[in-house]
Amino acid sequence: MDAFTDKRSESVFSLGEIALIELIKRWLGDISPCTPFGIGDDCAVLEPSNKPQLVTTDPVIFGTHVDANVSGRAAGKKLLNRNLSDIAAMGGCPRAAVLSLALPAETSITWLRDFYRGIASTARQHGVKIVGGDITDAHACFFGAFLTLHGEAASERVVTRQGARAGDLIYVTGRLGGSRIRHHYSFTPRLAEGAWLAAQPAVRAMIDLSDGLAKDILSITPVGVKPALFGERIPISNNARRWAKGTGLSPLHHALSDGEDFELLFVVDYRADQSALQRNWKKNFQKLPLTCIGHFSSPPHLPAGTIRLEKFHGYEHLR
Amino acid sequence: MDAFTDKRSESVFSLGEIALIELIKRWLGDISPCTPFGIGDDCAVLEPSNKPQLVTTDPVIFGTHVDANVSGRAAGKKLLNRNLSDIAAMGGCPRAAVLSLALPAETSITWLRDFYRGIASTARQHGVKIVGGDITDAHACFFGAFLTLHGEAASERVVTRQGARAGDLIYVTGRLGGSRIRHHYSFTPRLAEGAWLAAQPAVRAMIDLSDGLAKDILSITPVGVKPALFGERIPISNNARRWAKGTGLSPLHHALSDGEDFELLFVVDYRADQSALQRNWKKNFQKLPLTCIGHFSSPPHLPAGTIRLEKFHGYEHLR
Repeated sequence: MDAFTDKRSESVFSLGEIALIELIKRWLGDISPCTPFGIGDDCAVLEPSNKPQLVTTDPVIFGTHVDANVSGRAAGKKLLNRNLSDIAAMGGCPRAAVLSLALPAETSITWLRDFYRGIASTARQHGVKIVGGDITDAHACFFGAFLTLHGEAASERVVTRQGARAGDLIYVTGRLGGSRIRHHYSFTPRLAEGAWLAAQPAVRAMIDLSDGLAKDILSITPVGVKPALFGERIPISNNARRWAKGTGLSPLHHALSDGEDFELLFVVDYRADQSALQRNWKKNFQKLPLTCIGHFSSPPHLPAGTIRLEKFHGYEHLR
Repeated sequence: MDAFTDKRSESVFSLGEIALIELIKRWLGDISPCTPFGIGDDCAVLEPSNKPQLVTTDPVIFGTHVDANVSGRAAGKKLLNRNLSDIAAMGGCPRAAVLSLALPAETSITWLRDFYRGIASTARQHGVKIVGGDITDAHACFFGAFLTLHGEAASERVVTRQGARAGDLIYVTGRLGGSRIRHHYSFTPRLAEGAWLAAQPAVRAMIDLSDGLAKDILSITPVGVKPALFGERIPISNNARRWAKGTGLSPLHHALSDGEDFELLFVVDYRADQSALQRNWKKNFQKLPLTCIGHFSSPPHLPAGTIRLEKFHGYEHLR
């Protein structure tokens, strides 16, 4: 369904800003707390906390991240879930979000209602409140929703992208590739898994896969070492196999290059008991595969059979 | 100067995302702290604080808030300043911001550099760090910068829009109207003033003027009372007088209806010593006028000579 409508009576133009904000509060329901902790003042107020605070921001833009094939509800879920995935990647627990909308007067009220309901149901699931935002006119049929999500460390520490060393092992959750078949708007952010991993001292670095394994792994690779990944170990999703039939590329290619997997990629100290870690994982997250896909190796020689990552490209914006 | 260019070599297309992020970090300089407290991880990390936390979000969109007559530098300053004004309105102290950009590949590198330098110089002035963000392709020559600013209470409390009662007096800082003559991108957010006012127990409610006095005052008017404002007391700016010459409307009309004044409108307990408050204000903020423009009155009768606010309109989006 389209986000825009030619009929004035069905568009946000017929409401104006003030009535629209009232409707948004109704659509959000209990997800929108009362002022001063929520929508309706110059700032939202969050209670102080003695844990490290996390902040992340990611948008959903109509025409870039979603299109007329995606329902408003799925678009709203995707917006919050992609930000939740960033909180998961630091081992965090989400708390509250603000949402800045740029939209034209032609935006369909029905589509926008579904969009906010998608946000609300996802927020309810994860204990997130929508505490504020802004609405601005955009011309040229541009619809963009820019969310900023706040969280805090779930345990004692946050896990950053830095901390890997030569010899450390590389793990990934779930199966990769082919996200354009539904997965890019139906994925589950790995919050419980990220929080659990942050509580394991052997986990040294973590990132969520948003631009494709081949690109994202470079963000956790320290200077002076190289990732040695083994092709036969990469967990390839069924979607990647199906998608590959239409592209002429290999399923492995899609598992390495497609963006929007939203799985966790993390690094474990090579001296840690790997089989104990994998056993504990299975006890906690029975349904989600965990795979050791390689390790960080010191140049000049990569082990035989490792993937030449420079042959694959993740998604790069503005190109 | 225009934000867009036809020459590929002068546009962000020639850089791509990764090189652009490196450039942005360079443009921001010391305003961009090292990861994990800054740009370059899944989330930014802020240190815990025992004060109430404030969050606000406001964008600058090319074609809506700024145009080709405004330099990139002025656009960047405006973006941060309008968010700072929201922190000021709660009596807060700003700390850190994240910035989500939607821009087309045709964006001029020079314009964008000036834009970030404008943000950086304003951030330096107010002790704000830019700790994270996102960059996404936008088609159709849409440039939007969506900033979310974090702060905390400057004193013991935050001042909200709620708290006014019948009889309370209404004050405004500075002079109003005609913001389209430079003021809308050269204004100063009233941070020191907002923090000082929040420390005065007699100040009951506060807001910053962004959509025009006639509209914004309704946000601090409690149910069951009406604002009684006296026309001859409204502090009219020279810009409003100049602007009125071209519109055929009165300078007072512009002072009531123009948006983007970014002055503080606040409410003082009618039992407080008003002249002591005004004396103390003068000691602290000699150069900035403070004016008592009226009070909240109980219906059915407004005092003679008060402004009929329903005849004036502030700015309403999506109309």
